[in-house]
Amino acid sequence: MIPFNKPYLTGKETLYIEDAVKSGKISGNGKYTKLCQEYFQSRYNFKKCLLTTSCTDALEMCAILLNIAPGDEVIVPSYTFVSTALAFVRQGAKIVFADSRADHPGIDEDKIEELITAKTKVIVPVHYAGVACDMDKIMALANKYNLFVVEDAAQAIDSFYTGADGIKRALGSIGHLSAFSFHETKNIISGEGGMLCINDDRFVKRSEIIWEKGTNRAEFFRGEVNKYGWVDTGSSFLPSEIIAAFLWAQIKNLDEIQKKRKEIWERYYNLLRSAELSGIVRLPEIPDYATNNAHMFYLVCSTLGNRTDLIKKLKSEEILLVFHYLALHKSEFYIEKHDGRDLKNCDKFADCLVRLPLFFELSNNEIDKIVLNLN
Amino acid sequence: MIPFNKPYLTGKETLYIEDAVKSGKISGNGKYTKLCQEYFQSRYNFKKCLLTTSCTDALEMCAILLNIAPGDEVIVPSYTFVSTALAFVRQGAKIVFADSRADHPGIDEDKIEELITAKTKVIVPVHYAGVACDMDKIMALANKYNLFVVEDAAQAIDSFYTGADGIKRALGSIGHLSAFSFHETKNIISGEGGMLCINDDRFVKRSEIIWEKGTNRAEFFRGEVNKYGWVDTGSSFLPSEIIAAFLWAQIKNLDEIQKKRKEIWERYYNLLRSAELSGIVRLPEIPDYATNNAHMFYLVCSTLGNRTDLIKKLKSEEILLVFHYLALHKSEFYIEKHDGRDLKNCDKFADCLVRLPLFFELSNNEIDKIVLNLN
Repeated sequence: MIPFNKPYLTGKETLYIEDAVKSGKISGNGKYTKLCQEYFQSRYNFKKCLLTTSCTDALEMCAILLNIAPGDEVIVPSYTFVSTALAFVRQGAKIVFADSRADHPGIDEDKIEELITAKTKVIVPVHYAGVACDMDKIMALANKYNLFVVEDAAQAIDSFYTGADGIKRALGSIGHLSAFSFHETKNIISGEGGMLCINDDRFVKRSEIIWEKGTNRAEFFRGEVNKYGWVDTGSSFLPSEIIAAFLWAQIKNLDEIQKKRKEIWERYYNLLRSAELSGIVRLPEIPDYATNNAHMFYLVCSTLGNRTDLIKKLKSEEILLVFHYLALHKSEFYIEKHDGRDLKNCDKFADCLVRLPLFFELSNNEIDKIVLNLN
Repeated sequence: MIPFNKPYLTGKETLYIEDAVKSGKISGNGKYTKLCQEYFQSRYNFKKCLLTTSCTDALEMCAILLNIAPGDEVIVPSYTFVSTALAFVRQGAKIVFADSRADHPGIDEDKIEELITAKTKVIVPVHYAGVACDMDKIMALANKYNLFVVEDAAQAIDSFYTGADGIKRALGSIGHLSAFSFHETKNIISGEGGMLCINDDRFVKRSEIIWEKGTNRAEFFRGEVNKYGWVDTGSSFLPSEIIAAFLWAQIKNLDEIQKKRKEIWERYYNLLRSAELSGIVRLPEIPDYATNNAHMFYLVCSTLGNRTDLIKKLKSEEILLVFHYLALHKSEFYIEKHDGRDLKNCDKFADCLVRLPLFFELSNNEIDKIVLNLN
C-alpha cells in the first residue's frame, strides 16, 4: 500500500532528545525551544515566535491575545480544519463563515467585506495547501475596518507572498498574529506541535505570560522581575523540550525536505497536466503572488460520485487518496448557529477535492504508478 | 552543584520514539498513547485515561466536561500551582480559595463546608507531595451538596488512600475526574505532559470528543460512525506519540523508580528526624489513610527569614533548595477577586516550606552532605 503520508526521520531527532535529557532540562522553554524559535524568527522575519503543543493551541493564544469575548464576530473560511474556528469559539466568539474562491479552496478575498459588521474583530485567512491568500486585499480590509488578521498558516511553512509593493514576505509574517502546525502530515514535523508568531509589538510581552500559564515566569528567568506569580489568564501552551529537540532535527533538514517535496509536486504536475483525466476538473494552480511550498498535491473531481469512485479505484491498486475538510458551516456543532448563507465553493471542495500521497520518501516509481492509475 | 531535580532517562525512551516513527504514526492517539492509557487504567483502576499535553490541559478538560460557566464557583486550595485554578477560570468560574491544613499543605477538609454556596459546582483537592487528602470527608461533602470532585493528582502517581471502608484506592480514582502531571519534576516524566482520568461513566464518551478538537474522530477510527465531524467544543489536548513513547519507557521502570525514590525519602527522614534542626519546625508526615509516593521531601521553617537563610546557606555549599507556591489568593491576578478571607496556613507554607533535592540519581553521599548542612 502506498500510504497518503509517512513521517520522515532525518536521523538526528533522537540524538538531540538525548542531549536535551542530559542537559537536565526537558520541560518547555529550554535550549531547543529557543533554537527553533530563533531560527524561524530570523529566517522568516517573524517578530517573535513561541512553540506550542499544537496549531490549535497557537490559535487559542491568538484568541486570548485579541481579547475575544462573547459578542465578537470572527470571519473564518468554512473549508478549513475545525481548530481554525474552535479556537475562537472557546473564547466565546460567533463564527461568520466565508466561502472559498471558485479557483482555490482558500477564502474568497472579494467576499469578505460584505461579512463585516460592527461586531467583527478578526479575519482568519487560511493559506490552504501552503498557497498564499491575497494578503494585500485582506490587510486593506483590516486597516479600513480596524480589524485584526490572524493567518492560519498551519500548512504554510516556507511559503511566501509578494504584494503590490514587490516585497516577498513569508506567510505568517503579514497578519498581526499567525499559527503554524508541525503535525505529522506537515512538511516538517514533531508529531503534534505548533507555533505562534507575533508580528505586532503590542502582543509580544503578554504572549509569553499566556504561554506560561498566566505567570511572568519568562521575565523572571531573564532576571527582569525578582519573583514570578499569577498575573493573567493563559494555559500550558509550551511543548516539552523533547518535541522541540525533534523539531530542531527537522529544521536542520528543511531545505533538503523542501527540495524533495517540490520535486515530487512538480513530477505530479508535469505528468498530470498533459494527461487526459476523466472526471477531474482541476489541478492546483499557484497564483503569481504566491509560492509553492509543496505541502499538498490535490485534484478537484467533477462530482462527489467521481471522487468516491476514484478513491475506491486507487485503493484497489493499493494507493491511498484522501479527501479533506467537511464544510464547518454544515457541521452538527455549528449548523444551527450559521446564518443560513449558501457557501457553494466550500461545498464543492468538500465534495470533490482529493489529495494524493506526498511525503519525503515517495519514489518516482510510486508517483508514476499513482499517475498511471489516475488516467 | 547538587541540583533540585534531574530528569532520569531509563534508556529505552529513544528506542520507543524511533519505533513510533517507523510505524508511520507520531501524531496523537497511536500505539504508545494506548499502551500508556491501558497501563494506568489497569494498574490503578481508573475507568478511562486520556494522555494530555500537560496537567493544565487535563484540568481544562475537567472544566469543560463539567460545563463550568460564568457564575459557577469552584473550591480550590490557595496553596497550589496556578493551573489548578486557571483551568476553571478559563471557563469562567469564580474561584473560592480554601486554606491548607495546619499540619500539611493540602486543603483543610474540615473548612470546606463553610465555603459551599448554591453556586458551588466543584471541589478540587490537591494531593500535595503525593500525600492523599482525606477523600472520605471530601466525597461526603460532594454527595451531600451534589458537587463534583476533581482530584488534582499532579504529584500523586502511584499513591493511595484507604478510606473507612478499608479499601485502598489509587489517588485519581476516587473523584469523578482527576488530572496527573508528567512534567520533568515528577516521578515519571515526559518533559511536559499530563493525563485525564475519568471515573464516572457520564463523562467517558464526551471526553474523547473534547480531546480530539470537538470531533468524533475517535469513534470514527473504531468504526462506530461512518464519518467524523465537528460535534462539540474542545481543543487539541492529545500529545504526540513521541511524548507517549518517552512516557512508556518511564512507565516500564516505574517500580524501580519508585523503589529508589522511597529509599531516598526514607534516608532523609531517618537522618533528619533524629537531628537537631534549628529554625525548622516540621518534617513531612504521612497520615494513616495515605501512602508515600516519595514525590517530594519538604521541610517547614519557622519563619520566612529562616527559610531565606537556609536556602542561602545551602547554596553556598552548592546545594539547591527551592521554595514552592505563592498564595494564589494574594496573586496580582486574583487578589481583587478574592473575598478577603485570611488563609493563614496557606500563607505559612508559602513563606516557610522548602523542598530538598530528590531525584533518581541522587546518591547517598549527596543526601548525607545535604543533611549535614541542614544541621
